[in-house]
Amino acid sequence: MSVKKNITILGAGLVGSLLSIYLSKRGYKVTVYERRGDMRKEKISAGRSINLALSDRGWRGLEGVGIAEDIRRIGIPMYGRVMHSITGDLNYQQYGEDGQAIYATSRGILNCEMMNLAEKCGVTIHFGHRCTGVDLEKKEAKFETPDGATKIVSSDLIFGSDGAFSAARLAMQLGTDRFQYSQHYIDHAYKELVIPPGANGSFQMDKNALHIWPRGGYMMIALPNLDGSFTCTLFFPNEGRTSFASLTSRASVRTFFSEVFPDAQDMMPTLEDDFFGNPTGSLVTVKTFPWVYKDNLCLIGDAAHAIVPFYGQGMNCGFEDCTVLNHLLDEFKDDWTKTLPAFQLSRKPNADAIAELALMNFVEMRDKVGQPSFLLQKKIEAHIHQLHPNKWLPLYSQVTFSKIPYSVALINGMRQEEIMQKVMNLPGIEERWNSPEVEKFILDMIG
Amino acid sequence: MSVKKNITILGAGLVGSLLSIYLSKRGYKVTVYERRGDMRKEKISAGRSINLALSDRGWRGLEGVGIAEDIRRIGIPMYGRVMHSITGDLNYQQYGEDGQAIYATSRGILNCEMMNLAEKCGVTIHFGHRCTGVDLEKKEAKFETPDGATKIVSSDLIFGSDGAFSAARLAMQLGTDRFQYSQHYIDHAYKELVIPPGANGSFQMDKNALHIWPRGGYMMIALPNLDGSFTCTLFFPNEGRTSFASLTSRASVRTFFSEVFPDAQDMMPTLEDDFFGNPTGSLVTVKTFPWVYKDNLCLIGDAAHAIVPFYGQGMNCGFEDCTVLNHLLDEFKDDWTKTLPAFQLSRKPNADAIAELALMNFVEMRDKVGQPSFLLQKKIEAHIHQLHPNKWLPLYSQVTFSKIPYSVALINGMRQEEIMQKVMNLPGIEERWNSPEVEKFILDMIG
Repeated sequence: MSVKKNITILGAGLVGSLLSIYLSKRGYKVTVYERRGDMRKEKISAGRSINLALSDRGWRGLEGVGIAEDIRRIGIPMYGRVMHSITGDLNYQQYGEDGQAIYATSRGILNCEMMNLAEKCGVTIHFGHRCTGVDLEKKEAKFETPDGATKIVSSDLIFGSDGAFSAARLAMQLGTDRFQYSQHYIDHAYKELVIPPGANGSFQMDKNALHIWPRGGYMMIALPNLDGSFTCTLFFPNEGRTSFASLTSRASVRTFFSEVFPDAQDMMPTLEDDFFGNPTGSLVTVKTFPWVYKDNLCLIGDAAHAIVPFYGQGMNCGFEDCTVLNHLLDEFKDDWTKTLPAFQLSRKPNADAIAELALMNFVEMRDKVGQPSFLLQKKIEAHIHQLHPNKWLPLYSQVTFSKIPYSVALINGMRQEEIMQKVMNLPGIEERWNSPEVEKFILDMIG
Repeated sequence: MSVKKNITILGAGLVGSLLSIYLSKRGYKVTVYERRGDMRKEKISAGRSINLALSDRGWRGLEGVGIAEDIRRIGIPMYGRVMHSITGDLNYQQYGEDGQAIYATSRGILNCEMMNLAEKCGVTIHFGHRCTGVDLEKKEAKFETPDGATKIVSSDLIFGSDGAFSAARLAMQLGTDRFQYSQHYIDHAYKELVIPPGANGSFQMDKNALHIWPRGGYMMIALPNLDGSFTCTLFFPNEGRTSFASLTSRASVRTFFSEVFPDAQDMMPTLEDDFFGNPTGSLVTVKTFPWVYKDNLCLIGDAAHAIVPFYGQGMNCGFEDCTVLNHLLDEFKDDWTKTLPAFQLSRKPNADAIAELALMNFVEMRDKVGQPSFLLQKKIEAHIHQLHPNKWLPLYSQVTFSKIPYSVALINGMRQEEIMQKVMNLPGIEERWNSPEVEKFILDMIG
């Protein structure tokens, strides 16, 4: 059994901070090195995913260290999604059962809270430390410090929770043989925009929903913020006839929005400034294996499995990494030589599955949610779930409101989709969708 | 139009050397930087792919700079493959038409020849220069020189022909947004072994064939060398019941070979020394895009598209890169701003296709070539080709003995395979394989 005392964590983001709390509570001496400055003292840069949707897996991660209730107070429950048609018609679809919600949460507040708690638990966080290399054998991490000096830190174990562009992962790529790695960018990028609060800080749209403007080849979404504003995110092609490359003037942006997002456009006074002032963000899926080098280094969170944001599961999956790791440490009584291989074997198929689900959900959100047949399908699934909760849980609920492993959810979801395709092809399904025949038809296929 | 005078090439391997000759002959001042020492003065390390199979695309690359005849003199034509069964039975399959061959060629001799010619053309080659970084905007390459100093080289254009672990490609990965990249290792690795010459430098097996010992989950191949020896390569799983991990003692290696490669084993006196003395090589497919950064940097050869060796096309594909680039420079009158984008657009689909074909051919070589039904299928295809040369060219010939783009060959091959599956399912095909009915059956499907 390999005994570890001092643990280095690269990255004080959401996963790194949560991980540091878990490990600190287990008795380890934990030191975190963060590339950026302390966001509790500096203004965070706007225009980069400033709100998130916390769902069950995320909450479980926070509950494990006792901060779920603190965070829930600053979250805004979204019980369903509101689809905005091009003519301004609204269509509401509840996410799960009554009372089930995902929570719009500020990334900044959440991260600051977790860093506070980490420090309260005895974790040391060094800011402005850019990791420039990792010696995998010696378990040494090299940093450039804020004053430009080089610092080498030695410890018993290094965690790389340093995100999609992880320095720890790069060390694995460059320093080990047979390292499987892929980074794949989709053709779309994103841009954050804003709908400000209305009079007296009121919300200009339903604040308890996620808003979607599905337009086929692209879409915009909006999540509520505590101050009454909404953060909008436009997911849009990089190139092509209708793309970031084609919208180059302030006038063309305003005209485009007034044509395709007319109701939102009316509420976006700073549209042009936001569009040209905020960065255009890329959307990448990162897959890699192994995540672990001996019992010297372990990748976790986005560093091991960055995904596109369309299922709202990036952070939730990273927090679940922490929950699973903590359970395995219980099971193996902190024997890292057993824990780390079990961790990567347990998480890798689930990380792959949520990567797939996230890509699939982009098509669903930008295209299918606008179609009446899709809404009917979801209504039938909800109906069958209500009648037979143990036999049918919609895929969205499996991913969002359960702890069913993502890999199992993906398989279940594909099986359900196959059944639903047959159901949707039944003659007259629009009229008899909630009839006993259709119910029996589905039950027979579930078997 | 962007004028280029000074060109830097990273890597003096096969593709880098050939490229340097092409560019030098076009009038550019070309400087090559090679990480290793000068292989013309130092002994090259054994056990790492010391022979290659030159085929048509490779020859065309050499013909373009007038060195094909020199090299053909040191190549050994292999007109077909000889399958060795576990009982020692031999089965011969001709590769193409009578007289068509692939040529076993020494990597070392070929590379030395090309470096000699490059220098004769005025190319400067600096050895022992390890590239430690590339500034994509400034077109600066940074090197560690043999005496440990740092050298920065500025030029008008940089080519990265620095192989599967390219420093130029790493600069693209780290320095550009939306860079698509994957490195995928297969579960098998390789080990080079040797069958020495017989009495008086004679060949112990047919020297004009590629020898294969197909064994399902793994295989060994052998290519002839000028000195009467054969270089054998064992392609074998890394892990598992029968794998590099399981063969750990000299006795177990000898026993294993005597059981599964008995005829070869009899000719391998240094088997144990070779097995434990030579490195175990990994097998990777690298895919990436773009290959070009502005008109500052271009990846070429393995740096852009490393593939597994099972179609014998790695070098041939890299040489075809050079041929295509040279043609595009003719077409665009050396306007690099037009040439480089056209180059990557032309080559990327073909590089992806040969990557796929190479992976598919591993299954064919290690498994199918041992089966009578496979041999019959190839016999039927050869027969149809003979009767209708313009309607049916076997996939192997399209890849090996033609300049049909790999991407077209892949599609043709899949269509042909579909047809052949139906043919092989015809009742009594073993007896009537060369009958007019079967011929008509196939022609009808070709349409």
